[in-house]
Amino acid sequence: MTTTFEKPILTIDLVPLTVRDGRLCVLLAERGQEPFAGRQALIGGYVHVDKDCNLGETARRVLRDKVGLSKLYVEQLSTFSGADRDPRGWSASVAYFSLTPFECLQPALNRTGLDLVDIAAVSGLPFDHDLIVRAAVERLRGKGAYSDLPARFLGESFTLPELHRVYQIVLGERINIDAFRRKVLERDFLEATGEKRTDEGATRPSALFRLKSAASVFDRRF
Amino acid sequence: MTTTFEKPILTIDLVPLTVRDGRLCVLLAERGQEPFAGRQALIGGYVHVDKDCNLGETARRVLRDKVGLSKLYVEQLSTFSGADRDPRGWSASVAYFSLTPFECLQPALNRTGLDLVDIAAVSGLPFDHDLIVRAAVERLRGKGAYSDLPARFLGESFTLPELHRVYQIVLGERINIDAFRRKVLERDFLEATGEKRTDEGATRPSALFRLKSAASVFDRRF
Repeated sequence: MTTTFEKPILTIDLVPLTVRDGRLCVLLAERGQEPFAGRQALIGGYVHVDKDCNLGETARRVLRDKVGLSKLYVEQLSTFSGADRDPRGWSASVAYFSLTPFECLQPALNRTGLDLVDIAAVSGLPFDHDLIVRAAVERLRGKGAYSDLPARFLGESFTLPELHRVYQIVLGERINIDAFRRKVLERDFLEATGEKRTDEGATRPSALFRLKSAASVFDRRF
Repeated sequence: MTTTFEKPILTIDLVPLTVRDGRLCVLLAERGQEPFAGRQALIGGYVHVDKDCNLGETARRVLRDKVGLSKLYVEQLSTFSGADRDPRGWSASVAYFSLTPFECLQPALNRTGLDLVDIAAVSGLPFDHDLIVRAAVERLRGKGAYSDLPARFLGESFTLPELHRVYQIVLGERINIDAFRRKVLERDFLEATGEKRTDEGATRPSALFRLKSAASVFDRRF
């Protein structure tokens, strides 16, 4: 006996995060089509079964086509689903988030309809996009407390005071600099580049560091 | 312009985990239908858009119908996808894992085709089910080091020596009992029931504890 079921809609949604002017921000786009045409929402797209070898590829294709960016670090967040989340019908959307230095996202802001929005100001997005953004921030904060994830908002090399600032922005709280330095070095995900740089406003040069594994343990394949 | 895309297949897969005789085990089922009829695999099912209000409901319905269990703690693991993972076509499967005391899964073992398999012995499963099982164990171990997750393998109340044993089984390593006791109490997810019990082989009674929040912060809604 073979039963045929009505298939749900399957899409991906992107939560491209960055830090601009000391604030955690998400890249949103004005929707060109119904439903919710003209409204600001997460950037997303359908799976193209003829083009995408898996959902991670769908996410990277949409990022390339709609944002003009490739080679970004993307991580699967969670799958959001339901009968009511999309007026087109029962749908599931696999959400991916990316963490990028602002300089990488900046060129995308020249595209019509793309905008960076402070995550504290995100509300009233269509579908369940508010929930997806909150879940991405929660994941980042949950992991940020013990992972190298926030370092991905910085360039290839950075000083510990720079890293300290970005952790404070991500976690939304003040962190004692000495305790931070001790913990981060203990976690052993940084290596010194051997060079030094004087940060803006600093009186002495600080050692530069980079992530030991830029690809990282968090670069999931599924 | 409206374009219609071929929709991928959307399913859920279950990774019901438990501890039996000191070993971490997963519940598998013999497949009744093609593809891979007669082979042992994860229990899964299609989304029924007329019945399921979201994918979590699909997971719980499949668990109820195929395993005979309801009210289990299930958590979304990740979504596995691709053109090649299922011979029926491009498919995405949203994997859920559950953590259960052995006593809860035991009745299911009377059902034909259901079997508990030591996760160390899991290999050669059809589809990408080996990968899904590995990802579930990795998630449990990753979270287990700092979460209340392993306590879900125990009954409603348990002693600290019991909890210590189950953490050792989950993490697959010996843990110093004093350091464990200090860390677990520091994390503050347990509360004393006020009662005591003498474990098998112990000379003195130990205080009983339960999880402060049985529903827990990990009980995701999406």
